[in-house]
Order: sequence, then structure tokens, then C-alpha cells
Amino acid sequence: MCEREGGGQSDQWILGGKEGEAGRGCRMLDLPFLPFCVLLGGLGFVCVAFVSAWCQHWRGGFAWDGSAQMFNWHPVLMVTGMVVLYGTAALVYRLPPAWSGPKLPWKVLHGTLALVAFGLAVLGLVAVFRFHNHNGTPNMYSLHSWLGLATVLLFSCQWLAGFSAFLLPWAPTWLRALYKPIHIFFGSTILMLSVASCVSGINEKLFFSLKNGTMEYKRLPTEAVFANTLGLLILLFGVLVLGALARPSWKRPDADSPDSCQVLALPTPLLAMDYLHQLSGTTNVYWGYMRRAATSLVTTGATEGGAQGPVAPQLCSPSSTARSTAATATAPGSGCSSRAELM
Amino acid sequence: MCEREGGGQSDQWILGGKEGEAGRGCRMLDLPFLPFCVLLGGLGFVCVAFVSAWCQHWRGGFAWDGSAQMFNWHPVLMVTGMVVLYGTAALVYRLPPAWSGPKLPWKVLHGTLALVAFGLAVLGLVAVFRFHNHNGTPNMYSLHSWLGLATVLLFSCQWLAGFSAFLLPWAPTWLRALYKPIHIFFGSTILMLSVASCVSGINEKLFFSLKNGTMEYKRLPTEAVFANTLGLLILLFGVLVLGALARPSWKRPDADSPDSCQVLALPTPLLAMDYLHQLSGTTNVYWGYMRRAATSLVTTGATEGGAQGPVAPQLCSPSSTARSTAATATAPGSGCSSRAELM
Repeated sequence: MCEREGGGQSDQWILGGKEGEAGRGCRMLDLPFLPFCVLLGGLGFVCVAFVSAWCQHWRGGFAWDGSAQMFNWHPVLMVTGMVVLYGTAALVYRLPPAWSGPKLPWKVLHGTLALVAFGLAVLGLVAVFRFHNHNGTPNMYSLHSWLGLATVLLFSCQWLAGFSAFLLPWAPTWLRALYKPIHIFFGSTILMLSVASCVSGINEKLFFSLKNGTMEYKRLPTEAVFANTLGLLILLFGVLVLGALARPSWKRPDADSPDSCQVLALPTPLLAMDYLHQLSGTTNVYWGYMRRAATSLVTTGATEGGAQGPVAPQLCSPSSTARSTAATATAPGSGCSSRAELM
Repeated sequence: MCEREGGGQSDQWILGGKEGEAGRGCRMLDLPFLPFCVLLGGLGFVCVAFVSAWCQHWRGGFAWDGSAQMFNWHPVLMVTGMVVLYGTAALVYRLPPAWSGPKLPWKVLHGTLALVAFGLAVLGLVAVFRFHNHNGTPNMYSLHSWLGLATVLLFSCQWLAGFSAFLLPWAPTWLRALYKPIHIFFGSTILMLSVASCVSGINEKLFFSLKNGTMEYKRLPTEAVFANTLGLLILLFGVLVLGALARPSWKRPDADSPDSCQVLALPTPLLAMDYLHQLSGTTNVYWGYMRRAATSLVTTGATEGGAQGPVAPQLCSPSSTARSTAATATAPGSGCSSRAELM
């Protein structure tokens, strides 16, 4: 993907040789993020609408009684949670408003969306397990079930580790630096596994359901075309999200973002006032002392050094020297993080 | 992923704030590539061995006569071509020997491995189509078949576009700059789609084959456990290749590599002598004039400017100024390319 010096902030393209020619090529690829977001949101909505319509129109609708109608919640909840909502959570840091100001609200939004996605996935698993148990069908025998369950378990570990490392106060900086690239890597991996699970699940369900006469899968009835198309749309959504995540010029220039480490350990009113200060961009010495005092109550080894820097209007912000170093040195494509980036 | 200034050449880590702590975290993640390659090679071998053993031991072996034994070539050729060999081709530029010296031999190796992978995939498709036609089974009705064929078609476009843009002489620099990130993005995407196709195909085949009595898929006989494990191994292989491709510190510092544009348009003896010169690192004025003369025979708009620079011991190399600019300015994680990188 095309990349700009300073993580998309500067207009100077990083090019050797004939800057003009190659630069033209790069600029032509520099799509704006928001129109892409609208397209992706529309595609996500279409995926959820398609899977719901499939289960409602061809598979008999929904219920929560262990019947085939209860099974129908499985594809709907899995596609909504593990693909669409998960993909949305993954892209939170790519939103331009998240590029400046405090990182905390975006971290909380990222974690909350992921938690809701996980909740929907668990409900989706309950639906299929109860359906199997109600009908005496064994659980966990197909490759789809092995892959699906492995993906959800991996997701649970990812969420817990991310919450502990980036939102709770006691993770040391070196541990955050060690874990951040792992979190990013598994974030994309889990989405890839979710998409593969959905495709194998839709394929499996169609072979189960379309068996007889003119409704045989091999005769490609309308339901088969519709559900196959759903599978391809889910794949397209996953590929677009992974592409957006990999695009350096859409990454938040983290080195410039205020450090929001351990804010969850502070009283909520302080957080709200701190956030308002961040947005207004004002600097208030008295407020700075208040924040320093509040921060010192929860400072641990994780903020060692960082908490010595000016804290108004930011929490335990790295020194301006460190921030400017990071701003000039850290490549947006880099997973190796500045201190500010790790918080 | 962790990244070093200069694309892994310098030991200076790009870090803001407390370099020591975060740096320790990054260093702990900086795995050596060659042991990873050995592990990956072993895993690829195990995938091919597993799929062959499955078809030989449980599915009746191989033939080329339209029977079920002919179908057995399909999974073997697809896993070998579209996953293992394709993944190998994708990782060619990550091999340390490819980091220095001329890029051309690695480009040829990359293209050749991809072409062999594509050939195996086409044979795999012939196997399943002939099996279906021989048994009066319709083609192209399942989601697996739609996804699989779409993946192979995408792969054919990717190969042709890559060959035309990076190995044939007439692609202008701006077009290479435009296309390179697209080629990289679709390279990973095609591997992801191949893995999803394999998983859905194995799942589908097991539902077809394990139908009766104690051999029902839901009873999880030995064959089912073996083939499910094969599916998970293929997924693991795909994820590890995608992870290796995304790791900035394993990327070739392209800005330092000699430009090898249009070498395919030169007579083979000149190529061989040029390659030997590159390896010996000697500069020979007479040789330089010979090369300049040979290059001028095939110079097109694609080398505009570049061909004006010194050509011994390199072909249409960018000026040393441009190269040094690129060496210091181009981030390894960047998809936006220096001129040298595009050739």
C-alpha cells in the first residue's frame, strides 16, 4: 500500500528515483477512507440482511426451542458477530476522528464492539449446541465445527489479553511492546478464520438442507444461488477489512496521540473532564496538577518515566522529545511501537 | 510486527519514548527467518503428505480415467499448488540471499514457482471436471466450487499482470508504482481464498464420503479426524505464510537492490555475464559500455531517466543519489516504492 512520511500526515511521498512518475502511481491508489467505510458498512449490512433473509425465507424462520428454527440463529449471529461487528471493531483506529485527541475512547469503543461481537458468537454457539442436543446429533465432528470453535476460543484469548495489556494498569511497557504486534497479527488471523468458518458452514448447511428432487443443491435452486452469493459477499467483506487494516496510509499516526494508559483506573468524572479538556485542546495548569495527582494514585511500573512528563491536558504523556522523535522516526507500517503507541 | 530502520539492516530500533523497555519487547519478537522457513517447509511437506495419504489410504488411490480415483488428484494438486507451492513463491523475496545482489533471479524464481503452482491448480480442476462429466454430475454448483474457481481465475490474472508489469520491458514506472501494492495485496488475498477453498472442500468431501453406519462423519471415524486435522494444518500453513509476508523486518530492503528492469528483453549470455558481474561486485568500464549498448536496444519509456544513470554493473540503475535517498527514506513496511524497488 502507499505510504506517506509521517504516517499519512505529510504530503511528501517516500520515493527514491523518479519521484514524479512513481508518486503519480501511489497517489492514484490513495483512496479516501470514509467513502470506503460507507461502502464497507453497506456491504456488512447486506451480509447480515442476506443471512437473515436466507434463514427466514428458506429455512423456516427463528425460534429458541431447540428446533431447526433455533439452529437458524447460528448463521445469523456468527456472521453478524464474528465477521461484520468484528470487522467494524478492527477498523475503529482507522477512523480519522481517532487520529487525534485521546486514544482511550477509541480503545474503549474497540474493546466494547469486540465484546459485543464475542457475546453474539457465544449465543450463536449456544443455538447450534442446543439444536444438536435437542435432536441427538453429536457436536464437534465436522471440520467446520473444529475451525469455528477454535476461532471463537482464539477470539476470547485475544480479547482478554488485549483488555489486560492495554486497558488495565499493570502491564509493563516492554510487555505491551511485546504483545502489540501479536494482538494485531491475531486480530487479522481471527477474521480470516471466521470468514473460512462461515464459508465452510454455509457450504455444509446447503448440502444438509438441499437434498431431494428439484431442491437438490447440485440443481442449483434459487436458495443455493442466494446462499452461495452470501458466502462470496462475506469473503469480500473480510478481504476488504484485511486490506484496510494493512494499508499504512490509513493507520493512526500513534506517535502523535496522547497517552491514555491506565485511564480505566481513574474515577469516571476525571476521565470525562480529561476528555473534554483533550477535545477543547486547552491547557490549564491547575487542571494539570489535579490530573497529575489523580494519575499518581494509580501509577505503576507500566508508566515508569511516562508519568514524569507533562500531564495536562494528557494522562502520563511521554515527553515532548520522545513524541517528536516518534513522530519523525516511527513508520506507520511498523508494528514496533513508540511508548505513546503502546498506551 | 517489529521493524528496524533501513528494513532490518540497522540494529537501531524505531522507537519513541523509553527505547529500552519497548525495544526489549520488539527484540523478543524478532524471530530468525531461516528456522521459521524450515518449520514452514516441514509443515508444507506434512500438508502434502496428509492429503496424499488421505486419498491413497481412505479414498482408493489415484487414476486418470474419470473415476473416483481421478477425483483424488483434485485435493492433492490443489493443496500442493494453490497452498504449499503458492506460499513458497510468495516468500521468495523474504529469503536473506534475495536481500542483496540482483533482483532478477528472484523475480524469475517467484514467477516460475507461481507458474508451476498455477499449472498444478489447472490439472486439479481438470481432474474434478472430468470426474463430474464422466459421472453425469453437474459442475460449479457448490459454494466451494464457486470460490475455488474464482480463486484460480484471480490467480491467473495476478500472474499475467505481474509478469507484464515486472518482467516485460514496456510497463512505465508510474504503472509499476500503481500496480505493485495491488499485486502484493492480491498475493495475500489469493492465498487466503485458497485456504478457505481447501477447508470448505475437505468439509464437503467428508460429508459426501462418510455416510453410512460406523463410517458416518458424525461418528468421527479415523478418516474424519485425519482429514479434519489436514484442514487445520492447511490453515496453520496459510496463517504462517501471511504472517511472514506481513512482517516488516523480514522484507527485502528493496531500495538497496540493483535495478533489474527489462533484463528478460536482453540476450541470455548478457544476462548471465551481468549476473556474474553483480555477484562479483566488480565494476568494469568496458563491460559498462557493452551493457549500456545492449540496454539501449531495448530501452522503452519504462526506463526513462533510469537508463541515463551508470549501468555497470547494473542494468538501467537509478542514480546513486536516488538510491541513497531511497535507502534512507523508504520504510520497509511501505508499499509505496522507490524506483529501484519497482524494477
